Amino acid sequence: MYTTYISIGPAPTKNGQCTFTVWAPECNAVQVVLAASPQLPWPMEKGEMGYWTVTIGQVTPGMQYWYKLDNELQRPDPASRWQPEGVHGPSAIVDPSFDWTDNDWQGIEPAEMILYELHTGAFTQSGTFQGIISKLDHLQILGITAIELMPIAQFPGHHNWGYDGVFPFAIHNEYGTAADLKQLVNAAHQWGIAVILDVVYNHAGPEGNYLPNFAPYFTDKYKLFWGGAVNFDGAWCDGVRNYFIQNALMWLDEFRIDGLRLDAVHAIFDSSALHIMEELTSQVRLLEQRVQRRKLLIAEFDLNNPRYISPVAQGGYGMDAQWVDEFHHALHAAITGEQTGYYEDFGPLEDLARSLQNSYVYTGQFSKHRKRCFGKMPVNTGYNQFIAFVQNHDQVGNRLLGDRLSTVLDAEALKTAAATLMLSPHVPLLFMGEEYGEKNPFLYFTSHTDKVLIEQLCEGRRREFAVFNWEGKVPNPQEEAIFNQSKLSWQIDEVPGLLRFYKYLIAFRKEQPALQNFRRDDAVRNIRIQKNILHF
Amino acid sequence: MYTTYISIGPAPTKNGQCTFTVWAPECNAVQVVLAASPQLPWPMEKGEMGYWTVTIGQVTPGMQYWYKLDNELQRPDPASRWQPEGVHGPSAIVDPSFDWTDNDWQGIEPAEMILYELHTGAFTQSGTFQGIISKLDHLQILGITAIELMPIAQFPGHHNWGYDGVFPFAIHNEYGTAADLKQLVNAAHQWGIAVILDVVYNHAGPEGNYLPNFAPYFTDKYKLFWGGAVNFDGAWCDGVRNYFIQNALMWLDEFRIDGLRLDAVHAIFDSSALHIMEELTSQVRLLEQRVQRRKLLIAEFDLNNPRYISPVAQGGYGMDAQWVDEFHHALHAAITGEQTGYYEDFGPLEDLARSLQNSYVYTGQFSKHRKRCFGKMPVNTGYNQFIAFVQNHDQVGNRLLGDRLSTVLDAEALKTAAATLMLSPHVPLLFMGEEYGEKNPFLYFTSHTDKVLIEQLCEGRRREFAVFNWEGKVPNPQEEAIFNQSKLSWQIDEVPGLLRFYKYLIAFRKEQPALQNFRRDDAVRNIRIQKNILHF
Repeated sequence: MYTTYISIGPAPTKNGQCTFTVWAPECNAVQVVLAASPQLPWPMEKGEMGYWTVTIGQVTPGMQYWYKLDNELQRPDPASRWQPEGVHGPSAIVDPSFDWTDNDWQGIEPAEMILYELHTGAFTQSGTFQGIISKLDHLQILGITAIELMPIAQFPGHHNWGYDGVFPFAIHNEYGTAADLKQLVNAAHQWGIAVILDVVYNHAGPEGNYLPNFAPYFTDKYKLFWGGAVNFDGAWCDGVRNYFIQNALMWLDEFRIDGLRLDAVHAIFDSSALHIMEELTSQVRLLEQRVQRRKLLIAEFDLNNPRYISPVAQGGYGMDAQWVDEFHHALHAAITGEQTGYYEDFGPLEDLARSLQNSYVYTGQFSKHRKRCFGKMPVNTGYNQFIAFVQNHDQVGNRLLGDRLSTVLDAEALKTAAATLMLSPHVPLLFMGEEYGEKNPFLYFTSHTDKVLIEQLCEGRRREFAVFNWEGKVPNPQEEAIFNQSKLSWQIDEVPGLLRFYKYLIAFRKEQPALQNFRRDDAVRNIRIQKNILHF
Repeated sequence: MYTTYISIGPAPTKNGQCTFTVWAPECNAVQVVLAASPQLPWPMEKGEMGYWTVTIGQVTPGMQYWYKLDNELQRPDPASRWQPEGVHGPSAIVDPSFDWTDNDWQGIEPAEMILYELHTGAFTQSGTFQGIISKLDHLQILGITAIELMPIAQFPGHHNWGYDGVFPFAIHNEYGTAADLKQLVNAAHQWGIAVILDVVYNHAGPEGNYLPNFAPYFTDKYKLFWGGAVNFDGAWCDGVRNYFIQNALMWLDEFRIDGLRLDAVHAIFDSSALHIMEELTSQVRLLEQRVQRRKLLIAEFDLNNPRYISPVAQGGYGMDAQWVDEFHHALHAAITGEQTGYYEDFGPLEDLARSLQNSYVYTGQFSKHRKRCFGKMPVNTGYNQFIAFVQNHDQVGNRLLGDRLSTVLDAEALKTAAATLMLSPHVPLLFMGEEYGEKNPFLYFTSHTDKVLIEQLCEGRRREFAVFNWEGKVPNPQEEAIFNQSKLSWQIDEVPGLLRFYKYLIAFRKEQPALQNFRRDDAVRNIRIQKNILHF
């Protein structure tokens, strides 16, 4: 019953024509301004639901343009595919064609995933998609079946984790071109490796966000930790919903990405009868049918609420899987003894046992840290719907010094952690470098240009860290050195034997039928703890 | 898995002992101050989850008391059963005993309901529960099977619709005592009439709300039209959840109320895995088993989202029924031709046909008024889960002049409206006086004492009415005359023949098997519109 989904942004054709579509329901005039001929703007026509369109001839890849709103504001395209000069510059036309050679690829099932999370900028020295391609052999030999790219949408400045993106349809201009990303996906598929992309649909970054000039993309009805919430349920929300749905479909269809990891969906507030996650799922299922490839939706959230990953017929949103942070917290607290911040809710081996059995640790009991009873038993879910990890970008990077487990644990403890993960019933995810015990930190880095914003950011980090009682000064995320320190060293013999152990564990996991059983009713039995040893 | 539910407020026993329980998780000292001996406060003991208790001897009904928080603030009891001097005065002990004579009563099924909504203060000249008792014969002869009391919780001042209540456990001190309410319920049951109570769990009134002194009952995470949202999902929310659950159980158990109408549940925000509505439902189902009587939960909400009334096994919250405003809007717009405000979304008879078929009118299509696509088809629900009406307190009282249909339509049009309601597949609700064409308005009335608040209130009403383009001055809700004008005249021959027609329709509805079929798949067939006449 919902309105037709409408493609947005520039749609160039082979014959040099290009139709521009932009959503600006409350504007009275919108024009396309080609950077090469700014004195001759192209008036757009307003169609249903506030979508403006115009078709222009002789448009070639690389041509730069702006939209002009109500004859006043000149702004880049909210659905820009390319921001060659960064977030404040013009948008540019991208040629969507690519010679794919992965036609036999079918996508990946969650149960088959051995995930590897990486940050494009910090994974290799070059910090590009080409850099990732050069490491695919390493990953394939390790046994990885899916890489997960931290967000690649255009963000302000040179370096950023990616969660400050403001052009969800544009690839960050320093990581490579659209063609480079397609080359990466194509190559990965040829190595038998799926590509999952981290996308941020719960907020926009604090710098270069011009969306509010176009339409009510944000609402003050809900208060987020990091500012205005996205308007998924107020007046004009259909265009906002379409914007993110089109974004998901672009990555999954045009770029042949195998799945999306949706950042912090607990910060997506939607009182609509059809929740945006359910709507997105239904559109992705239609795409799956059309392209005959499996496409995954993986949610990150902090609610211990199985509704997100439950079938639509059971009132769920039908997503495929979710990250399960509590497995990490239970393991981390048990293995390091940390008891500050949110680790105060974890510690005894019983918590780890609980996560191995129930995926969540908190399924209704009182949480000291949250000061409330929390969570629900994830009945009617499979273990293959839960992505577990010993480390990830957040759990390393949101430590004061970005320190990895390899700098605080000895080799045997690292192996214990690795084995707990790889033998767990959940789908395992490694964080780049974990496989060989990388010692470089993964720090929080930014390169914003707004001075006030930078000050707020540092203050925010200080407040966030206060509960942990960590010792030391909060590093300045703006310093170039902080980014450089966070790059992988690729000293793959850093912890002797560790890489070989990971390879062995992954191979073992793939071979053992018991580890291919993800049924909640019988995959895990007889967990017991004796003399501080967990048996399972 | 959630914590034990804890009774709150004073619990007097026959032997004169009384245990006081109050929830104040962040206080360091709480005392009971008996008004008769303020110099000898009783220190309370802090138990688990922040509940304080003390047992005091020689406590008799009528005794007044306060709580003293951290040796500073002296406040009435959040779970006070009686506020003899209004919202700012002390709380008082109530004797809970009552000689019930309704032991054969089983409760009522939604399908059996012919509802009659009334305001205790305006229903009769006395404005009391005793007044209602004196009219039960009229209602029984009319054919009513359930009365629905607008909120009776203690509110500030003398007159109020009741949605400004601030002591949900106390009966408004001018309506009668707890014993009077029990007498009403007992008498109604003997007449074969169920009693539904309107309760407000989405906000507290703006005057006399001392809850924040005790605990974090409210949150600024969600922004409500009328102020702070109730904290159903943040730190310490368990005590808040328990507070409202205990309130529901008190009415349904101790007062033998047959069901609750929950006001504006769309303004209850809860991101918990176990939604507060689902939790409440589960507790009410346990009560049903214990007392062996049917207990109903009826939601009012503006979301067109069947999740609230869907079974828990299908991911719903399991409530019994909901109000369906869109039946009203479609009928009202068709019969009066009004096209302003939210009526701009209605008008053609097709909308009424749609509501007769689908209960909701908007099941996903674009709403001009909301500027978005809205709603979802209520599949897997029965018509007996939808309460429909031609008028109600909101639809009359939230008009500029509180005018009823009887003042704008002739007798034949009133009968057409009545017939459309009574022959519809939904559960019908009449608004007091509708049955005989009462001409007195039902205006919005308050008697707050806070001057700033009164000014804000009037300004708010003016803004709310602006979209309707109604002509005339906004009446001052504070004027005593406004309340007096809103009382029923009881001129039951006001519109000749109307009362008899309502009686006939109700009797006809009860007798016809076709009107006792509430199955969505076959109760309504062959709706068609020919020459501006709707056939069904």
